[in-house]
Amino acid sequence: MMKKPLILVTNDDGMFAPGIKALVDVARTLGDVLVVAPNSPQSGMGHAITISDPLRLKRVDPFDGIEAYECTGTPVDCVKLANSVLLKDKTIDLCVSGINHGSNAAINILYSGTMSAAMEASLVGVDSIGFSLLDFSFDANFENGKPFIKKIMEHVLKNGIPHAHLLNVNIPNLATKDIKGIKVCRQAEAMWVEEYTESKDPRQEKYYWLTGKFINKDTGEDTDVWALENGYISVVPSMHDLTKYETIPEMRELEK
Amino acid sequence: MMKKPLILVTNDDGMFAPGIKALVDVARTLGDVLVVAPNSPQSGMGHAITISDPLRLKRVDPFDGIEAYECTGTPVDCVKLANSVLLKDKTIDLCVSGINHGSNAAINILYSGTMSAAMEASLVGVDSIGFSLLDFSFDANFENGKPFIKKIMEHVLKNGIPHAHLLNVNIPNLATKDIKGIKVCRQAEAMWVEEYTESKDPRQEKYYWLTGKFINKDTGEDTDVWALENGYISVVPSMHDLTKYETIPEMRELEK
Repeated sequence: MMKKPLILVTNDDGMFAPGIKALVDVARTLGDVLVVAPNSPQSGMGHAITISDPLRLKRVDPFDGIEAYECTGTPVDCVKLANSVLLKDKTIDLCVSGINHGSNAAINILYSGTMSAAMEASLVGVDSIGFSLLDFSFDANFENGKPFIKKIMEHVLKNGIPHAHLLNVNIPNLATKDIKGIKVCRQAEAMWVEEYTESKDPRQEKYYWLTGKFINKDTGEDTDVWALENGYISVVPSMHDLTKYETIPEMRELEK
Repeated sequence: MMKKPLILVTNDDGMFAPGIKALVDVARTLGDVLVVAPNSPQSGMGHAITISDPLRLKRVDPFDGIEAYECTGTPVDCVKLANSVLLKDKTIDLCVSGINHGSNAAINILYSGTMSAAMEASLVGVDSIGFSLLDFSFDANFENGKPFIKKIMEHVLKNGIPHAHLLNVNIPNLATKDIKGIKVCRQAEAMWVEEYTESKDPRQEKYYWLTGKFINKDTGEDTDVWALENGYISVVPSMHDLTKYETIPEMRELEK
């Protein structure tokens, strides 16, 4: 009999966010599960790590029979601690992060704690998948995407991710029957245009609060944003090599 | 006469770190300068943004005659606020971030607040350069790299960055005369192996503190790590599209 795969589950919304429960529900049908998640919401933390403070792990039991720990750090810290402290010599077969409450399509991959946690596991060669649902609300319906999440996890456990170790998966906010299928895509060339609201605190000191509009001028039909707008689940194979190779020869002038 | 370029200077070590002063020294010889930097050290913040808290800007005057603001947020917040609140309709010609105290070569680009600030400016099409010196100490010598920093900034102001808007520049900790020159490189395929130190606090509660070893098994002579180890300044043209294109066709099976 094959050894059951070991699946690390994490997220950036914290241990008691409904999204992580949905992911644990699926993961436990496919393997042994370890959960390490932040003890507070960590949305927008990007690839932040905790350098100047100690970190703590606390055993908790929100998922019947599943080993789970809350961590005082960022999503990336959770993955590092799982690997180095909790698992030591055991090897993770798959890391899944999420399900995030809200899209991480396009450039959002950079800001996302969910995706950075998955990225962190991928850096040490672990196949990793970040899942996000296009619904920010606490009571979002995480059931609809489950059959597809299971399909993608099974596929990666069986086949790996050729040339890479990371998938960015986004799920449209639709009933299961209305999801048209899965599209393997590229990251759309979209951006945020900030609009800080300016206000004054009770002591009449000025402050700014981040808000913004997501602008997509990328009309390609091979992008994650297109897939999501057209009722598909988007899967973007992703990487950590940020080198823009075609620029290298054109900048050699600098070496003179 | 040509209009003087507008240069935004930021960092992740805070307004009073010696590295940012060195960058301002160079930038002011090339154009008009605006400085927006965090009001506390933000190393390892990656691409974190502040969503759930208000942000504040405070006018300060550490650089004789240069407009400068401390920001309560992350390095990425500094760039967003500079763009949206302080500059509004003015266009930044160049964003420079650093000089970071310590290397941001190879995979460190992901964790680095310095590089994420530069990345953030590049996302809206501003040519951006993150500079780092391979010396963690507060009294590192930031003078040695200045002639090269000026050369790189001048080159980008004149020629732009073909196909991209971001350079990751690392400077070896050598006297100017011992720096062999500039190499335009790719990001080395290196990684961190974590070694958390485990200890107990005065209440006998366990905690972990991040430490680790940087491991480079990439023997290519076209990498940033190679350049630095051989006395060169490394320049890696970088990008925000994380798509691993060659994986896409091989994963189409998932769409069936």
